[in-house]
Amino acid sequence: MTVITKQLSLNTRGEGDMLDVTRNVAEAVGESNLKNGIVTVFVPGSTGALTTIEFEPGLLMDLPDILERVAPKSLAYEHEKRWHDGNGHSHVRAALIGPSITVPFVNGRLTLGTWQQIVFMELDVRRRSRNLVLQIIGE
Amino acid sequence: MTVITKQLSLNTRGEGDMLDVTRNVAEAVGESNLKNGIVTVFVPGSTGALTTIEFEPGLLMDLPDILERVAPKSLAYEHEKRWHDGNGHSHVRAALIGPSITVPFVNGRLTLGTWQQIVFMELDVRRRSRNLVLQIIGE
Amino acid sequence: MTVITKQLSLNTRGEGDMLDVTRNVAEAVGESNLKNGIVTVFVPGSTGALTTIEFEPGLLMDLPDILERVAPKSLAYEHEKRWHDGNGHSHVRAALIGPSITVPFVNGRLTLGTWQQIVFMELDVRRRSRNLVLQIIGE
Repeated sequence: MTVITKQLSLNTRGEGDMLDVTRNVAEAVGESNLKNGIVTVFVPGSTGALTTIEFEPGLLMDLPDILERVAPKSLAYEHEKRWHDGNGHSHVRAALIGPSITVPFVNGRLTLGTWQQIVFMELDVRRRSRNLVLQIIGE
Repeated sequence: MTVITKQLSLNTRGEGDMLDVTRNVAEAVGESNLKNGIVTVFVPGSTGALTTIEFEPGLLMDLPDILERVAPKSLAYEHEKRWHDGNGHSHVRAALIGPSITVPFVNGRLTLGTWQQIVFMELDVRRRSRNLVLQIIGE
Repeated sequence: MTVITKQLSLNTRGEGDMLDVTRNVAEAVGESNLKNGIVTVFVPGSTGALTTIEFEPGLLMDLPDILERVAPKSLAYEHEKRWHDGNGHSHVRAALIGPSITVPFVNGRLTLGTWQQIVFMELDVRRRSRNLVLQIIGE
């Protein structure tokens, strides 16, 4: 059993951007030479989130649309009253989806479904550079 | 420290079906003979989800009802415009709840509360066969 | 590689209370003397939740407000019809956010962002004593 840490640097295009990081995570697991274990993908920062989804153009619009239903930008956020950075909704959305995802791998391969990809969601209101942490634990 | 992989096959009854998999996960941990660690339960596929809930008949209606509030079937999903499989809302709901749950175990027992069960939620619009991955890491 | 289990006892002030447990988790990781790994923070119980957020007073109001939008107290929950404990919305909200969070640590430090804290959310309708499980796995 061992732990291997990788970083994944991303440049996002701003709010609602969704990046398919599946290949990056799969390659990191492959390079680790570990056969069986889990990989935790984590975003340091409170306005991004990780989940899985079928990465196709329709859902890349649908998921942000639903987040706008859940936590609309137009509400009067208390965060905004204090900090005036226009991203109260971003923080709330990120807390709901969560900052990490843990995926098992078996025989060196992620156990994802065929139409299931690991995605990073940029929820902040501007372009950001993100450095995801990939923590791979296995044997 | 070691890793043990188990599979759990389920047949779901379609949309909104919630299956209590606590006993299955507890047995897998028991059979592993590991004393302390974590188990990650993961669904390969982008229209199912895992969480914990008190598994009683009321909440088995309430949680799907709230998901219908959050991401109603009746919306015009972009996914639907492209793929015509009627499950745009399923994908969005699954991405919100998430495809995995990680539960610690101590002295061979899951650290769940008395009224807390591990549930798989079928969010797709039809009956499905599901093969969950249980990745058990511990010593 | 080893596993170290810690408990974290909290007294919450009731519904909507959010407690910053970052320091407690960081200290537990420090005391473990492990350098690299993951820590899973888990709440036994189905009316509490864990996530990360920027722990500032505005968001401590905004996140509960959004949960009230998503799963309002005023709805007629089936859970309530059976159990009359007034917390059907609590259960649903907890299932949506989730009972655990997994955070990597590297060189003995949590990989959180500067403005990102680990929070426990009390979603039940009364004061509760909570015993979180911190499962630390690493080397």
